[in-house]
Amino acid sequence: MTDNLLGYRAPLRDMQFVVNDLLQAPQQWAQWPATAGMLDADTLQAVLEEAGRLCSERIAPLNRSSDEEGCHFEGGVVRTPAGFREAWSEYAAGGWVGISGDPEYGGMGMPKLVAAMVEEMLNSASLAFGLYPMLTSGLCVALAAHGSAALCAEYLPKLYSGEWAGAMCLTEAQAGSDLGLIRTRAEAQADGSYRITGSKIFITAGEHDLTDNIIHLVLARLPDAPAGSRGISMFLVPKVLADGSANLLSCGSIEHKMGIKASSTCVMNFDGATGWLVGELNRGLNAMFTMMNYERLGVGIQGLAAGERSLQSALAYARERLQGRAPGGAQAPQQVADPIIVQPDVQRMLLTMKALTEGGRALAAQVAHWLDLSKQAADAQERQQAGELAALGIPLVKAFLTDNGLESCVLGQQVYGGHGYIREWGQEQLVRDVRITQIYEGTNGIQALDLLGRKVLMGNGYALLTAEIRRSLPELPAEFATPLNAALLWLDELTAWLREESGRDPAAVGAAAVEYLQLLGHVALGWLWARMAVLAAAQDDDFCRTKLATARFYFARLLPRIHSLGACVRAGSGSLDMQALANV
Amino acid sequence: MTDNLLGYRAPLRDMQFVVNDLLQAPQQWAQWPATAGMLDADTLQAVLEEAGRLCSERIAPLNRSSDEEGCHFEGGVVRTPAGFREAWSEYAAGGWVGISGDPEYGGMGMPKLVAAMVEEMLNSASLAFGLYPMLTSGLCVALAAHGSAALCAEYLPKLYSGEWAGAMCLTEAQAGSDLGLIRTRAEAQADGSYRITGSKIFITAGEHDLTDNIIHLVLARLPDAPAGSRGISMFLVPKVLADGSANLLSCGSIEHKMGIKASSTCVMNFDGATGWLVGELNRGLNAMFTMMNYERLGVGIQGLAAGERSLQSALAYARERLQGRAPGGAQAPQQVADPIIVQPDVQRMLLTMKALTEGGRALAAQVAHWLDLSKQAADAQERQQAGELAALGIPLVKAFLTDNGLESCVLGQQVYGGHGYIREWGQEQLVRDVRITQIYEGTNGIQALDLLGRKVLMGNGYALLTAEIRRSLPELPAEFATPLNAALLWLDELTAWLREESGRDPAAVGAAAVEYLQLLGHVALGWLWARMAVLAAAQDDDFCRTKLATARFYFARLLPRIHSLGACVRAGSGSLDMQALANV
Repeated sequence: MTDNLLGYRAPLRDMQFVVNDLLQAPQQWAQWPATAGMLDADTLQAVLEEAGRLCSERIAPLNRSSDEEGCHFEGGVVRTPAGFREAWSEYAAGGWVGISGDPEYGGMGMPKLVAAMVEEMLNSASLAFGLYPMLTSGLCVALAAHGSAALCAEYLPKLYSGEWAGAMCLTEAQAGSDLGLIRTRAEAQADGSYRITGSKIFITAGEHDLTDNIIHLVLARLPDAPAGSRGISMFLVPKVLADGSANLLSCGSIEHKMGIKASSTCVMNFDGATGWLVGELNRGLNAMFTMMNYERLGVGIQGLAAGERSLQSALAYARERLQGRAPGGAQAPQQVADPIIVQPDVQRMLLTMKALTEGGRALAAQVAHWLDLSKQAADAQERQQAGELAALGIPLVKAFLTDNGLESCVLGQQVYGGHGYIREWGQEQLVRDVRITQIYEGTNGIQALDLLGRKVLMGNGYALLTAEIRRSLPELPAEFATPLNAALLWLDELTAWLREESGRDPAAVGAAAVEYLQLLGHVALGWLWARMAVLAAAQDDDFCRTKLATARFYFARLLPRIHSLGACVRAGSGSLDMQALANV
Repeated sequence: MTDNLLGYRAPLRDMQFVVNDLLQAPQQWAQWPATAGMLDADTLQAVLEEAGRLCSERIAPLNRSSDEEGCHFEGGVVRTPAGFREAWSEYAAGGWVGISGDPEYGGMGMPKLVAAMVEEMLNSASLAFGLYPMLTSGLCVALAAHGSAALCAEYLPKLYSGEWAGAMCLTEAQAGSDLGLIRTRAEAQADGSYRITGSKIFITAGEHDLTDNIIHLVLARLPDAPAGSRGISMFLVPKVLADGSANLLSCGSIEHKMGIKASSTCVMNFDGATGWLVGELNRGLNAMFTMMNYERLGVGIQGLAAGERSLQSALAYARERLQGRAPGGAQAPQQVADPIIVQPDVQRMLLTMKALTEGGRALAAQVAHWLDLSKQAADAQERQQAGELAALGIPLVKAFLTDNGLESCVLGQQVYGGHGYIREWGQEQLVRDVRITQIYEGTNGIQALDLLGRKVLMGNGYALLTAEIRRSLPELPAEFATPLNAALLWLDELTAWLREESGRDPAAVGAAAVEYLQLLGHVALGWLWARMAVLAAAQDDDFCRTKLATARFYFARLLPRIHSLGACVRAGSGSLDMQALANV
């Protein structure tokens, strides 16, 4: 095995293509108050290069060993695998935890678009390591949006600097997808604080040894709160209190998981722990969604990141591994066999990974850019529309990019043949690690319900997105415009039909949601690939020829998936006959 | 967690439906010399009940613990996990290792169809355990077909009885999919034996503590043999020689794998080990394919078996887990929430698993029955045609049922939400275990090349299968006959087009093979589901209503996958532009 199979190279050229050429973000950054004079294409390059170096040289080499070692739990203490403390220190020292944080409290104030690129590199290097900064950044977003000025001043600087870390405590044994069932109690104290009592499960980074303090955002309910999801409040609960004493909370155990073994997944027990309200009473779910939206984009990027790592190592293996001969005759007659990359089916697998990964990168970037526009655009209507597009895009990125991430990791493993199943070679870990991304932060089924039921049928995002796609059509050559237009017409027809159906059939949305999300995802990727093809066709270098050829592959072999997906949507809830499950 | 989540119940009713109603096998068994008077529907029921009891009560309970424990390796010795030795003894004592073995040497002489049902139950209970008997049975098939009478008499009785076990030693570090690159040497000795020297990797059950002796079939090449795959011979190499002395072979290490951790995957070193030729010199690959065909059917059945186990536990979980409310309003208002099985998307996942699994069982049974017919049918032409249908069906079962197995295991894990990612709950193990089935015994890409390049374009199987399907059409109601006929017309058109393309484009077969295999698989499953629907519609009980509803689900939501698959096939090798992979 050679080093380049386990190594990771940051895809800087493609990231710059997406940010600079596709989205033309630097021109817009120059006009935003938050970034004017601070961020241009050169700064971007320097930022990406620095983050890329850190991720590929310092974090990626820990990925295999930390999976084998896992986290250790003894007497309430969690110890992360060898190298994680040093890597965290270095990552924090670079200011990366606070990359998109509020400069007033010491954040770097970078657009989400830049942060998204850094997140991708971090998670390609190690999905398990990447969770620690991701949870911390997400907590900061929620705190900055909903916390009092005093809480922000006390906590944000040390979180942005990575001196402290964060965790979000939502799930309980009886309350997963249905957070209305939460039982953790909060009792008001005379000094304005609250005493939090209850047990949480599946708490990522709930306890670890990377930092001296861990700040929890905890969902809990007051004794007199309304039942269900409208009686839930959010509290900030630090592991260590301001006076240096230990708060009344502890880690009861850590889970033994399929993957992301170097990320601690904790049972957290709160035994009258002291906390402070964040946001309004009984509006905790609302406040938590600020964080969850951030995390959901991040989880989608994890899927993409795992796909990129899988693609890189599968490509390297396919070029090295000598087995058999090309179908048209030997291509390397001086060797005992040809490299397997000459096999059409291996090419199919690699191109599928490449088209899904690079298309996914463009989609994640577009959604991150919409998030930035929703805050920074000068025009109020542009801000609002960007916000609606981002709201549509977030569940799409979360579910579609993680589904594609699993596909890319499984394909990368398949390229490796038997070696793909052996831990030492690294590919099987990617499959185990990426699999969680389809489950946590709201399963992909939940994302699909959010996308179709709320964002498409009740929001404005669908109309805005399809209008944007239609505006692109005249600039596209027929080889892309014709199939994209046909796909769009069909999507419109299905959406209109679903709108009607959902009025008379309460099961209509649930019966169609997952396949509808994938269908919309493929149309969106088709749109982005077509635009990238046009940009690539205008230049004549290796990178752009590669890009154009991949766009054509996408249209030939991946966009056609919409046919089957559409048929499933159209089958309606009548295709789900409970009788078929009655007697098994 | 309740016991029924980790438990396994043998699907006896469905197996009997397939064997008795769909295939009407007992009527045919009554006419075959090998089974007349020995095997009828009642005997079948007794056999399946006994095997089901053994698998569910004795083997299934070992599945989780043996995954956690794995195999131990020290100083060349492999120790299997706790309970495996006892389970092997009991399995062997029941005669199950030799279930389809030659009665002349102590085998039970059952049809492959019956053995296939037992194999499914065994592998649902534990994929890792199931490999030990599977390798032994496969070796017996090759030995019985190609070995001398003396070798058969010496080895088969002790293999059928499970006193000894078997392994097949093909792969070398530089020779995986391309066995022509094998370097292991065989030198003829004066006494007619051979001295075998070389190193083999990925040898399943190459060394273990279940039996006192392990019989290896080893591919090796004589010093003067032609280069490539036509210079390979097959040798029988026992671990312990007839005089009780140790042969010159040893296990160098075992692999650390993603799953099937309780199955030993060994590096086997042969250092001048004594062996005997099996079959003709330089015809070893041919002889090994006898075994591999047997194993490939078995591996397809492993995919099916994992899917069945995943379906059972996901159904149990979906009925127990209370989260949220049904879309039309509470269905269990007396409880805090409804069971998640009321959610349309959960129903979609469960029905997908059910339709793929039960359809897969019918396909595996049909192919096993064709194998039996190819040996037992009275009419020579019927035997030949059944042989061609089986030859087409074996790569189809291997690849299609293992791809579907992964899908079913991933879906089952998704139904479990976060618990699906935790080892304790069992679902993630199914995903890790089943993943190997798409890789070993020839990757699914290799199966697809065999199916399309050899069986469809060069053999008679495709014409025979489509003719059989067409003969069924008049008996089917329009809801099944119309879409099945349309699918068949399209498959014919694509096949004719591929036949032409492959004449002028050497890459045509490789570019289409995987999607073509899946397309053919879906048409075959559609055919079987339609026939099962007709049989079910004629009866009025719970089981048959369930069957009919599942058939309708298959036609509404799974058969439409042929649209996307067909588009990929039609895209041709031109869609695979190597330029797209040039500069990544």
